[in-house]
Amino acid sequence: MIKIAVDAMGGDNAPVEIIKGAVESIKEQNAHILLVGQQQVIETELKKYHYPEEKIEIVPATEVISTEESPTNAIRRKKDSSMVVGLNLVKQKKANAFVSAGSTGALLTGALFLVGRIKGVERPVLGTCLPTKKGFTFLVDSGANVDCKAKYLEQFAKMSAVYVENMFAIKSPKIALVNIGAEKEKGNALTKEAYELLEQADLNFIGNIEPREIPFGEADIVVCDGFVGNTILKLSEGLSMALLGMIKQEITVGYYKFAAAVLKKPFRNLKKKLDADEIGGAPFLGLQSLVVKAHGSSNAKAIKNAIKQCMLFAEADIVTKIGEKIR
Amino acid sequence: MIKIAVDAMGGDNAPVEIIKGAVESIKEQNAHILLVGQQQVIETELKKYHYPEEKIEIVPATEVISTEESPTNAIRRKKDSSMVVGLNLVKQKKANAFVSAGSTGALLTGALFLVGRIKGVERPVLGTCLPTKKGFTFLVDSGANVDCKAKYLEQFAKMSAVYVENMFAIKSPKIALVNIGAEKEKGNALTKEAYELLEQADLNFIGNIEPREIPFGEADIVVCDGFVGNTILKLSEGLSMALLGMIKQEITVGYYKFAAAVLKKPFRNLKKKLDADEIGGAPFLGLQSLVVKAHGSSNAKAIKNAIKQCMLFAEADIVTKIGEKIR
Repeated sequence: MIKIAVDAMGGDNAPVEIIKGAVESIKEQNAHILLVGQQQVIETELKKYHYPEEKIEIVPATEVISTEESPTNAIRRKKDSSMVVGLNLVKQKKANAFVSAGSTGALLTGALFLVGRIKGVERPVLGTCLPTKKGFTFLVDSGANVDCKAKYLEQFAKMSAVYVENMFAIKSPKIALVNIGAEKEKGNALTKEAYELLEQADLNFIGNIEPREIPFGEADIVVCDGFVGNTILKLSEGLSMALLGMIKQEITVGYYKFAAAVLKKPFRNLKKKLDADEIGGAPFLGLQSLVVKAHGSSNAKAIKNAIKQCMLFAEADIVTKIGEKIR
Repeated sequence: MIKIAVDAMGGDNAPVEIIKGAVESIKEQNAHILLVGQQQVIETELKKYHYPEEKIEIVPATEVISTEESPTNAIRRKKDSSMVVGLNLVKQKKANAFVSAGSTGALLTGALFLVGRIKGVERPVLGTCLPTKKGFTFLVDSGANVDCKAKYLEQFAKMSAVYVENMFAIKSPKIALVNIGAEKEKGNALTKEAYELLEQADLNFIGNIEPREIPFGEADIVVCDGFVGNTILKLSEGLSMALLGMIKQEITVGYYKFAAAVLKKPFRNLKKKLDADEIGGAPFLGLQSLVVKAHGSSNAKAIKNAIKQCMLFAEADIVTKIGEKIR
């Protein structure tokens, strides 16, 4: 029986949407959920729903880590927080995976300290599915390691290849290195060295990808350091929002308003395509178990999808497969 | 009399649009243009127009540098290329500035070798006006220095402050450091050190800016290394194109087509706002004279605006002012 621990207290919409998502997930899948957080709060929320009660268990944790706290301090001091208790469930093999929409920094720090790395992995890495014209691209590192060596990037690529192949059934996924030129000799010291390593690795490495090409979705996986990756992720979010806002500004004046009204549905479709909630959360790869960072603004659907993602990950035994690939 | 040298052979639309832009510029401004390139080609093009002939001079150069060539080799070997001849005009003070829409790499390399730095400048830097919801943000380094020290970033900020203040009449422009967190202690080794320097400098430093916020235009100047800056620039271009393409895909099917037809004009307005041609080219700051990189796809309007930019730059004596700020 696969057990998924869920941080009931983390994220902008906690606990309401988190708990709703957990309840919805057990209706669709054969999951067993451990809801971690303040007992009374969780019990009150759960009373709203009818569901097979044996499938949801409450694991009490009195404290909550906020996004304003220093990650290291928070993890060290708040031993009875939903995040630390949840990570310990995974560490002690009482759960197969842990999902949290709480502080990214605290979750990554805590996961590193508590869950433990797969043997041979230098740096665990955060991957995020970035919406593209063709669907999505798996972006690694999307924010865990801000200063990287070339060797780390090679491992990021290998771990991602295993993840994408097993999770999305993409056989031998196309991997590209984010670089500011298409040619091999372009880039900074890091990308030049990483190119050499990726070329020699047992991977479907298709060369450099320029940031301009990323939104068109030619590569299944794009690899970079966590500073560049987080920049790509956050700029994409901000620019999409700003552009849709600018379009709205242009088309909701004067008689364009009527045309704009007709177009509400196609715009909704587009927003859905750009919506990260559809895909689940960002996996933190290279640990002994899966830890998933759900978006801070996750709603019930996002949590449900993150839980589904954990189920798939555990069923496919991706931890073992990553260990074999890295070795 | 201010003289502007223009690379007649560089860019996707050379020589037709380049020469058209030069002719249009002398009609609007008191510019004297040196068109550098293959004499016969330029003469044939110029015959199309009526203009005050004493204001345009041809400076012959038989060779052309293509974007496919290695920048260093091209600059070293093609001594009679329009780019090298143009840069030499600036070096020998026969022209106040040089505009080229040709190979970025070759132009930056050539400018460094031939034009010479302002005393005290560690690394000249490329700045680009990035369209935002509020107008634009000046992005430095947008691609010249892929591996940077914190000290360089501080100088980029100072040079940009002088440029933006004088060119756009923005008094004490707001400068932000591109970083993956808003707090001072966030980021990688480079940004942490650069933050300290920027905080102590005589600048209107407003702290970190997260990439998500850049498109909303809160800062007048955003500073980062050339790898991150080029990523921001190129991803913004690519994502805008991809998004507008996706919108088009959604709204030009079925009965939405009619609404979409009505909205053509607002969409054109938006494209114009996002259009780099409106603002001119990217200045390469920190050299003894101005060198402007015009977009590879520059049309006549872009060239005309780049020439206008050179005139303003020379009139405001920005080189001297940068020297004073850096000292």
